[in-house]
Amino acid sequence: MAGKAFVLLSGGIDSTTCLYIAMLEFDEVEAISIFYGQRHRKEIQYAQETCQMLEVPHRTLDISGVIPATMLTDPAIAIPNLSYADITGVSPTYVPFRNGLLLSSATSHVVGRRRETAVHRHEEWAIYFGAHAEDAAGWAYPDCTFEFTGAMANAIRIGTYDEIRLRVPLQFMTKEQIIRHGDDLNVDWTLTWSCYAGGDLHCGTCPTCRARRDGFEAANVVDHTEYACDSAAESLQRAP
Amino acid sequence: MAGKAFVLLSGGIDSTTCLYIAMLEFDEVEAISIFYGQRHRKEIQYAQETCQMLEVPHRTLDISGVIPATMLTDPAIAIPNLSYADITGVSPTYVPFRNGLLLSSATSHVVGRRRETAVHRHEEWAIYFGAHAEDAAGWAYPDCTFEFTGAMANAIRIGTYDEIRLRVPLQFMTKEQIIRHGDDLNVDWTLTWSCYAGGDLHCGTCPTCRARRDGFEAANVVDHTEYACDSAAESLQRAP
Repeated sequence: MAGKAFVLLSGGIDSTTCLYIAMLEFDEVEAISIFYGQRHRKEIQYAQETCQMLEVPHRTLDISGVIPATMLTDPAIAIPNLSYADITGVSPTYVPFRNGLLLSSATSHVVGRRRETAVHRHEEWAIYFGAHAEDAAGWAYPDCTFEFTGAMANAIRIGTYDEIRLRVPLQFMTKEQIIRHGDDLNVDWTLTWSCYAGGDLHCGTCPTCRARRDGFEAANVVDHTEYACDSAAESLQRAP
Repeated sequence: MAGKAFVLLSGGIDSTTCLYIAMLEFDEVEAISIFYGQRHRKEIQYAQETCQMLEVPHRTLDISGVIPATMLTDPAIAIPNLSYADITGVSPTYVPFRNGLLLSSATSHVVGRRRETAVHRHEEWAIYFGAHAEDAAGWAYPDCTFEFTGAMANAIRIGTYDEIRLRVPLQFMTKEQIIRHGDDLNVDWTLTWSCYAGGDLHCGTCPTCRARRDGFEAANVVDHTEYACDSAAESLQRAP
């Protein structure tokens, strides 16, 4: 459609699939990565590579310094050796209101861009956000729930004079469904990065690595990822 | 009440009145100022002075760099010589999604603080925000409307595991009503700053100076503010 889409692109499976979806739905697409101090900075390099390959403009906003230290940003805190199924209550990798900040920063940027551009009052500009059902399940990440994204969609639309809308196409999909859908769209998975630990290879044992591996297996899609720890059994042996 | 309130304190009339209200309503109160690149940086000094006087802890979060350049942050762009009544449609002093960013940054900070603190699961922690009826009128600042703050209240509550609530006590009050109410609470108006222009004195002609002067007059409260331009007539003469 006419208009412009801005995709919040972390470089992982979900947001990369969002980018491919946005490219089907909008004539013009750009990608925004947000550096909030995450130690797994590598994901932004993967985001860049995907954008280069797809010839999509890419930009990184730096909001580090605003978010309090957590295990995703502070190398002194260990990443837990868990799968999401083991987590109840507040996830240890919850970054305080991270997605509120990501969406607000992106919105502010997109409104600024729209102000610089000659654009028809009713042309739709959209922000794509890759929250999905498994992040939201059990309120592990409350800022991935439909209740949260719905509230933010309202705040964004209202707070921008109705100029910007939020789209969350994966909201009700599982990782397995996302990988199957992305594979249909020919997503190049080798240009995606999931690991929280920040090493050279995917560690294979952090919650997102486990979700990645399990997702490919469940979707019956070949997983070309090279994991430092290749099996759950091995990772349990190596756990401290 | 038991619990803790964090007041978004710009140093102006509205947020300072909010601080006094929060101190009536909560046993523990802290103030947060946010530097987003505003040229009227002076308002933060006034916020600090009010906090010193009231013995309220005060802290400044720096989110400059995230917000695109506008006339409130870029000295190269002139502040308009207008009253709010002259403004229709998008206000020239609208900062893209500013309040979404302010509220998200404050929420992220407050969640981080709560994580460091031994606190009962159901103890209420609140963020006070000084949006009011005249900022919202005619959608001049859409991110001050009840629709926006209501959506953000939901996003904040949901996105923080129900731990943080947003309070917007001035949402339906005019500047006149706020000044009358604040005066009843003995707000020290000499420690508040409204001007957008960033000079030594209140300029007397920018939209917020006009709202300040008109507000005191309408509320029938003595205005001790020293304005560089003392009357609307004079300011019109001086206008370029």
